Amino acid sequence: MEATIVRLAEAARAASLKASLLSSEKKNAALTRLAELLTANAPAILETNAKDIEAAEANGLNKAMTDRLRFTQERIEGMAEGLRQIVQLPDPVGETLEETTRPNGIRLVKRRVPFGVIGIIYESRPNVTIDCAALCLKSGNACILRGGKEAFHTNTHLAQLIQQALVDTGIDPETVQLIPTTDREALNILLKLDELIHCIIPRGGESLIRFVAENSRIPVIKHYKGVCNLYIDKDADPELAQKIAINAKCQRPGVCNAIENLFIHKDIAAELLPKIARELNDNQVELRLHPGAVSSLEGTEIPFKTATEEDFHEEFLDLILSIKIVDSLSEAIDAVNTYGSGHSDAIVTANQEAAETFLASVDTSTAYWNASTRFTDGFEFGLGAEIGISTDRLHARGPMGLRELCTYKFIAYGSGQIKE
Amino acid sequence: MEATIVRLAEAARAASLKASLLSSEKKNAALTRLAELLTANAPAILETNAKDIEAAEANGLNKAMTDRLRFTQERIEGMAEGLRQIVQLPDPVGETLEETTRPNGIRLVKRRVPFGVIGIIYESRPNVTIDCAALCLKSGNACILRGGKEAFHTNTHLAQLIQQALVDTGIDPETVQLIPTTDREALNILLKLDELIHCIIPRGGESLIRFVAENSRIPVIKHYKGVCNLYIDKDADPELAQKIAINAKCQRPGVCNAIENLFIHKDIAAELLPKIARELNDNQVELRLHPGAVSSLEGTEIPFKTATEEDFHEEFLDLILSIKIVDSLSEAIDAVNTYGSGHSDAIVTANQEAAETFLASVDTSTAYWNASTRFTDGFEFGLGAEIGISTDRLHARGPMGLRELCTYKFIAYGSGQIKE
Repeated sequence: MEATIVRLAEAARAASLKASLLSSEKKNAALTRLAELLTANAPAILETNAKDIEAAEANGLNKAMTDRLRFTQERIEGMAEGLRQIVQLPDPVGETLEETTRPNGIRLVKRRVPFGVIGIIYESRPNVTIDCAALCLKSGNACILRGGKEAFHTNTHLAQLIQQALVDTGIDPETVQLIPTTDREALNILLKLDELIHCIIPRGGESLIRFVAENSRIPVIKHYKGVCNLYIDKDADPELAQKIAINAKCQRPGVCNAIENLFIHKDIAAELLPKIARELNDNQVELRLHPGAVSSLEGTEIPFKTATEEDFHEEFLDLILSIKIVDSLSEAIDAVNTYGSGHSDAIVTANQEAAETFLASVDTSTAYWNASTRFTDGFEFGLGAEIGISTDRLHARGPMGLRELCTYKFIAYGSGQIKE
Repeated sequence: MEATIVRLAEAARAASLKASLLSSEKKNAALTRLAELLTANAPAILETNAKDIEAAEANGLNKAMTDRLRFTQERIEGMAEGLRQIVQLPDPVGETLEETTRPNGIRLVKRRVPFGVIGIIYESRPNVTIDCAALCLKSGNACILRGGKEAFHTNTHLAQLIQQALVDTGIDPETVQLIPTTDREALNILLKLDELIHCIIPRGGESLIRFVAENSRIPVIKHYKGVCNLYIDKDADPELAQKIAINAKCQRPGVCNAIENLFIHKDIAAELLPKIARELNDNQVELRLHPGAVSSLEGTEIPFKTATEEDFHEEFLDLILSIKIVDSLSEAIDAVNTYGSGHSDAIVTANQEAAETFLASVDTSTAYWNASTRFTDGFEFGLGAEIGISTDRLHARGPMGLRELCTYKFIAYGSGQIKE
């Protein structure tokens, strides 16, 4: 097993040196060819996918997981369309980031270049195979894909099409590799190959991501969870606050940039909290009130539970919201920094000073003033694509697009300079 | 032990939230005060340092290590001067990196902010205590310092002065923490606290750095070793090539940006290699020739050894150079990518096409054309300071200054935007 994984990583490393030099035209040709192959092979892909679905149902996989696994004609066309969009994006490789001439005459250029080899570790959604391979290729990287066992047949079929697209356009097919097993042992071997693989991006549930982070010797860019917070300040416009609270919780509760906690200033809570609570309740949201907030809903018919301390740390990904009344802006900031996961946090206020204090003080990837947290993603931020959202601080924070799959190198143009 | 380390990290984390909001004036006042305290307390520091030197000598520490440990009046004044230079540098915190207005009207600003808490793990040089604390403070970070046991008394004394400077200028002294023990157990506990510490920078020998990288759950920015390479192309100006080879090897052989390998094109080797070998020999450099290069020095009186394959992977940090004759530019590029550590690599040639191919193809932090590799450092690159040189790819590559101790956050200025 170890020899197989090492050989595969060595092949990816060798391919990465060539991939870093590919022209945009060549990379785009491969992506366009892959889009054609997906469309042309849709019936065969659906047949392969049916095997995975059948096995999933036989193994009693739950409905949500099985749905994630399932391809339709429409989903396949969606992937092909996604590829055509990536073709349209600017190539990040070779961009000049900074340029200076040093006093000794050396011209120093800081230039964006690919990482090298990226390992993508993911779970059940087989479309990740296409999306991630395409983003890695466009950014000049080789990649090693390790999907979940539920999608094994589909992933293998998609990887074959990717390699065919590479061969058809004159690119080394070893640039994109699929690990031919879903054993944990193979993953453990992979995560130690820090001389051959330069970055690991895990995509999936928190337990997979923790496993990868704890066992990898290779740098990991990750996103554990999105515990996003909304603070309604005493100087908030009540209607604006209510509109944002409802949107941030209800518009799509199962995603990482939906809020899980609402903090509301005591001076506005008595008036506003019952109104917001009523609309949340109308939207089937279960309310979990901090003990100090309970009295504000007493005497109304709005149902609620009493929140525990743990509730405020929880990523519900569901129609559940924890609510706390705070005495001050400073208590709200502390609450965000205590309970939040550093993903997306918002303040609603008409007071610029309060807003600026909040925006500067919350330790998060994206701080919002008078807007819903639901905008944190690569498309809304104009990156044109997204390989994930980082709640880390090193390298990338927040939505990651093509540029975030690159590092840089310095190029020093001299004319015989030596160190005195 | 565990409780002590966790408490210390929690205190640093709390201090970091305040440190991120400090004005440049306040941070500079603390650095200036620290410079004064170092000068005023020089006799006492030298007395403390003498205890470490005495213990080192009693324990039979080798001379080079003991020298690294030793303070003099001049070295203390050098540290104070270093602090005054950091005061002069621009504050990286709050810089706007990008700014766009999205189609929905949200103004999105990408702003540079501190990491939070940085752990610095270092060995025998106690000046690192002052340098790293100062760079972390200037970049708005809290830091946790873990020095070597040989410098324990000196480090403790310096940490007290740092904390006094912070108190004297109204900054939380918990912003800079020294681990009060040099136990490996304490280090292991520290390296698991990924919720409290955001980045680890190890500084020291390769074994320390490997230990940290293998045991840390916190992202590490590191520099294993500098196996730097020089390639002399067939179209090189011979005098320029000789001057650069001698400088890159001999000017200061014990540093990471000095070359360890010389590759020379076969068409120029017969003429040029004996000349360079003679001058290297005059500079006391031990030559280790690849078997294929041996014949070029036969019949001369220049002494040499035959190189092994391992020699080309070695960071000698000494007056030793491995030499190989290559058949082509492409073989030279392969050799650099095989043996080099991705630090600094140079080509000497008058042929622009060969140079551009080399510069694009070598996978390294800094690629030089017609200049010595000895320029890779934060001062030469105009960063004004250096906390280390990264041979990693994530976050920072090459020399790291104040900006590289920062991450960024997005600030989204809205006017009631909600997701449709």
